[in-house]
Amino acid sequence: MKKNLLKKFHEYFKKNEGRINHYAIPDLWQVWGYDNDSASLTTDGQVITDPDHFFKTLIEEVFLKDAPNTTASLSMQHNLNTSGDWLKDSAIYSSLIRTSSAWDHDRSGFLENSNRDGIKETGTFLKTLALLPFLKKMGINALYLLPIMTFSKSHKKGDMGSPYGVQDFFALDEALQDDLTKDAFTIDEEFRLLVEAAHSLDMRVLIDIIPRTNAIDSHFIKEHPEWFYWVKADQLNDYGPPYIEGIPSTTTPKEKYMKKVYENKNIYKHIDKFDFDPKTKDPELYEKIKDSDNLLDAIEKHYNLTVAPAFSDHINDAQPPWTDITFFRLFFDHPSVAKPYIKKDTPPYILFDSIKCNLYPGQKPNKELWKTIANIIPYYQKTFGIDGARIDMGHALPKDLLAMIIQNARAVDPDFGFIAEELDNANAQDAKDKGYNMIIGNGFFAQPRVFDGSAKKFFYQAADLELPLFAAPETHDTPRIAARDGKEALSKTLAVLNMFTPNGVPFINSGLEIFESQAMNLGLDSTPLEAKRLSYNDPFFGKLALFDRYQLHYTYELRYVIPAILNQVNPIREKLKPALFDRKKLHTYESDNPFFVGLIYMQGKKITMVFGNLNPFHVEQAHIDITPIRRKTKNTKTKGKLLFSTHEAPRLFAQFVSEDVIDIHLGPGEVKIVEL
Amino acid sequence: MKKNLLKKFHEYFKKNEGRINHYAIPDLWQVWGYDNDSASLTTDGQVITDPDHFFKTLIEEVFLKDAPNTTASLSMQHNLNTSGDWLKDSAIYSSLIRTSSAWDHDRSGFLENSNRDGIKETGTFLKTLALLPFLKKMGINALYLLPIMTFSKSHKKGDMGSPYGVQDFFALDEALQDDLTKDAFTIDEEFRLLVEAAHSLDMRVLIDIIPRTNAIDSHFIKEHPEWFYWVKADQLNDYGPPYIEGIPSTTTPKEKYMKKVYENKNIYKHIDKFDFDPKTKDPELYEKIKDSDNLLDAIEKHYNLTVAPAFSDHINDAQPPWTDITFFRLFFDHPSVAKPYIKKDTPPYILFDSIKCNLYPGQKPNKELWKTIANIIPYYQKTFGIDGARIDMGHALPKDLLAMIIQNARAVDPDFGFIAEELDNANAQDAKDKGYNMIIGNGFFAQPRVFDGSAKKFFYQAADLELPLFAAPETHDTPRIAARDGKEALSKTLAVLNMFTPNGVPFINSGLEIFESQAMNLGLDSTPLEAKRLSYNDPFFGKLALFDRYQLHYTYELRYVIPAILNQVNPIREKLKPALFDRKKLHTYESDNPFFVGLIYMQGKKITMVFGNLNPFHVEQAHIDITPIRRKTKNTKTKGKLLFSTHEAPRLFAQFVSEDVIDIHLGPGEVKIVEL
Repeated sequence: MKKNLLKKFHEYFKKNEGRINHYAIPDLWQVWGYDNDSASLTTDGQVITDPDHFFKTLIEEVFLKDAPNTTASLSMQHNLNTSGDWLKDSAIYSSLIRTSSAWDHDRSGFLENSNRDGIKETGTFLKTLALLPFLKKMGINALYLLPIMTFSKSHKKGDMGSPYGVQDFFALDEALQDDLTKDAFTIDEEFRLLVEAAHSLDMRVLIDIIPRTNAIDSHFIKEHPEWFYWVKADQLNDYGPPYIEGIPSTTTPKEKYMKKVYENKNIYKHIDKFDFDPKTKDPELYEKIKDSDNLLDAIEKHYNLTVAPAFSDHINDAQPPWTDITFFRLFFDHPSVAKPYIKKDTPPYILFDSIKCNLYPGQKPNKELWKTIANIIPYYQKTFGIDGARIDMGHALPKDLLAMIIQNARAVDPDFGFIAEELDNANAQDAKDKGYNMIIGNGFFAQPRVFDGSAKKFFYQAADLELPLFAAPETHDTPRIAARDGKEALSKTLAVLNMFTPNGVPFINSGLEIFESQAMNLGLDSTPLEAKRLSYNDPFFGKLALFDRYQLHYTYELRYVIPAILNQVNPIREKLKPALFDRKKLHTYESDNPFFVGLIYMQGKKITMVFGNLNPFHVEQAHIDITPIRRKTKNTKTKGKLLFSTHEAPRLFAQFVSEDVIDIHLGPGEVKIVEL
Repeated sequence: MKKNLLKKFHEYFKKNEGRINHYAIPDLWQVWGYDNDSASLTTDGQVITDPDHFFKTLIEEVFLKDAPNTTASLSMQHNLNTSGDWLKDSAIYSSLIRTSSAWDHDRSGFLENSNRDGIKETGTFLKTLALLPFLKKMGINALYLLPIMTFSKSHKKGDMGSPYGVQDFFALDEALQDDLTKDAFTIDEEFRLLVEAAHSLDMRVLIDIIPRTNAIDSHFIKEHPEWFYWVKADQLNDYGPPYIEGIPSTTTPKEKYMKKVYENKNIYKHIDKFDFDPKTKDPELYEKIKDSDNLLDAIEKHYNLTVAPAFSDHINDAQPPWTDITFFRLFFDHPSVAKPYIKKDTPPYILFDSIKCNLYPGQKPNKELWKTIANIIPYYQKTFGIDGARIDMGHALPKDLLAMIIQNARAVDPDFGFIAEELDNANAQDAKDKGYNMIIGNGFFAQPRVFDGSAKKFFYQAADLELPLFAAPETHDTPRIAARDGKEALSKTLAVLNMFTPNGVPFINSGLEIFESQAMNLGLDSTPLEAKRLSYNDPFFGKLALFDRYQLHYTYELRYVIPAILNQVNPIREKLKPALFDRKKLHTYESDNPFFVGLIYMQGKKITMVFGNLNPFHVEQAHIDITPIRRKTKNTKTKGKLLFSTHEAPRLFAQFVSEDVIDIHLGPGEVKIVEL
């Protein structure tokens, strides 16, 4: 058994104490009880300290006691196997590492790559350790990491580039290594440290893998140019998805449309831009140039070829091509649906059918590529001990490739968990059939919409889905809930209700817990104004974490509100958990009031009633007849016990107006939990 | 000289004291200093009193001293003539009488037509007197009344019907008469009382006239069926604006489209539904039935005819026909543009051209009707002494008719003021040419949009318009500003900035001053959710004041915030007024910050700087170089005086960082006024 990394890092920090003595961190990072005589608090919620002392003490007091001494998933360490269904017992924190633990440590006003102490200020694996005790207090037991792999800097958007433009599945993004430790440890060790630290708190770690696309300058190009689609470099200027007359805008390329696509002349102008890969065209020349410093430039010079940019898989989508990424060529032949229209020797091309190869597979799978892709997760399992993954655009993968990915991961760890990138609740059964353990679902869209009743519907309908879903009002692609109508009040209401959603997995998009109002990306249900939710004078006005250096507003005056609430309700959730995932234990209070949510859980004789007011501005009330619940539970109590309220001075909480009818008043946005 | 009405009402109340002793009113109605030993305050902001005592004291202490003893406009009483341009010196309060002074006087939980004391609880002319002192304190000096005329109850929407479906221009809506006084006074006297009371406070009164349409069961039908368009009653079921292939949706019927309209076959199916009016068809029969109790029924029975419903004047507008109103037949012949396409003996019909007869007049004006319409305002001037009017759909009237309306009014009172229903700022000059004194403008649309810079643009661009415009974030047709993103904070910011808008006339849509969040109508920039801005348990959830009984939330806990602020800034505005309407006196602070408004007014040596932060959530700051202002004013002061801030503890207010550069910090939504 190898000596665990936590110990090694601990020793390193101990040795290095005294290097820096004015390293600022948000006070939220020390909620585990950091105590240092020489640390001082600023008036705006920062702690100024010696980082080596800080991390030494953190490891010592928080992680070391239960540090694992093996690199394996938590389930493997404890010999658990639920086929990944531990996901339903989890509460997930979603983090883009470079953002979540970014801090202006030298208080210069800028988030520097190298500050006055020579320290990188964007987030790192190491600094993420400082978040874990804080997350633990909120009941989080799974850390979900947005892409951590090396990504392309060549066509980057924003000042950092998008981590979704992965360049190498098997190399971590160097920016995530910390300057405090980089001389003594490798980046792989730093990520492994983070996984070990999480595991020591019984917290699982999931990663995001993006198997359908790769960066335009993918590291795979050199050895495998035939894994990509190529266009003539001098024809790139008007390259893009061809417009298909007679098909509505943004249409899924269902089979019935494909005849129209291939009968349209525009697509042949598009297809003619493509050519075979350079190695196929002239293998000898390729051998000569493949070691060039800038391979793409060399290919362009010698072949007039470049990698074809990706674009939307919807027909007549107005989005321009995605110039930073390309699709993998998952089949060597053309999609079967195209064969009647296309000469056999037509070079491979990107079109709606070759993108959505789940619907339009070819007959000659690119087996070596498939094997490589299906080996990503096992690599991360064996090297770092991760516990689960989300598969980006999994729905666009060939069925067999998806099955391979899931199989390979479960061969290493039968309890490996899979989250489907599935936003439509109606597809829960389909995701389950494919081997996923949960879906993302439509919470991000429904929950902010309290006035038309969508939010209430979400909490009621979640119970009937075939798979658990994220109980969350935002993701890294959507507007922030704190920026929506209802602001902090609604954020608070939803934070609590999400802990008690039937069939729901609480999911916190990093920043939600401190009412961060600036979106990370404008991908879903958004407008450009979501990048401008701050003061114009804020250095992050107009910046998006997915593309730019970004620091969360960890010192916001209300930062402790949601964490304190979640800390308070988590024990209640723990006791209620079996009922949350058992439809028979739930009774929903039905009424026309679009704001009043009543989730009543029955466990033996015990009745736990979760009442939520989704109206952030007004009081709501209801008379609830519990006769059917009395009948089922044989509970005859006529005095309730208030387990929790979001409000400091809650309104009268559960007055029985008759033996079986309770009168509930809820303040604006209030959630009340009452036990009978 | 006739004895004034205020005195008569005063005597009446005095005589009747003691009739009722538990009449509840909102405490805002007694801000003039009502003092009564037997009145009591409730914990929720109501006063319970004897209404006769209340109104007696109100008239005595507030109105009687300066009561006019003539029925004439304020300008006529004081021999003023600015051709109506007093409007730019005004601050307007817009009121739908039945809503603004509605109250649940018996605290039964319902707004009754006859409560337990036999008193109508919806608003009345009389009760509006109780609002005036409160309005006066906010700087209001003009009361603008939404329609007060008798309207149709036969096709009514909601539980009250829309006052825009006017049935009789020369009869007031009976619902506006108060039960306290109806035995002793006529409704005309009650309205005249209101005008006198307003005039006694130097407050002008404007009304809303709707000359283009009338109710389906207009009182004019009996004597003048030929003033209306008629359709065959059995062909009404699929009646509606014909769809014109090849014209985009909701298109203004410009000349270039009319050929397409008349070449389209659909319109002849539409035109064929019309027929001549019953009197023209069979005058003898008409003479026999015209006195029927239900004339429309009788016409339908004997002629198979009914009045044709109105519809939108835009081509291919998806709105269904407006079943409660119809258009007046302003010309006896067909629109000139139609003549090449239409047989001469085709019955008169409603179509885009006959609706917009400003663009497509006929050659035979319906002179008697025109005279009647042009006599509406003179009637109200002579009978009640009103000061001004807004003309609904004035843009759709024949130019000559509009000119007649304006001329006739100014013949009675050369200082009569006219407001154009013009929402497009670009048409200000055109409105001016027609004789209007101001336009509504786009404030209701631009002001709520703070994040994309529209709001700031509004305050800067208003200065350059050829006519003043409403400085207002809402009207009775739009969502409430307190329901928009920014809520109370933004409402407050805008309330102050609107008092200092260059070329702007502050305009308060009744309820705005107490943060009312429920819209009155869903007519503009709205969705159905604006009717659901209250608690589901609120009796007015889902109700719209324009159609339903509605009571404003006068006891909202923050009700004094805006009134107190306006009371405080009004004297500053009074001093600044000449500069507000003189472009040369204004310097705007230019920057890219979409939230920071800087309006700098110069009066002689005096510099008054109005700084507003349109960001409701964050602090904003600016460095303002006042060198050009120093040059113009020769003002060299380096210490500013803070005249006003919306914030109780305002941030550092005007620190000179150099001799000519001021550093201004504004809290979230703060407005600061600084004098140099």
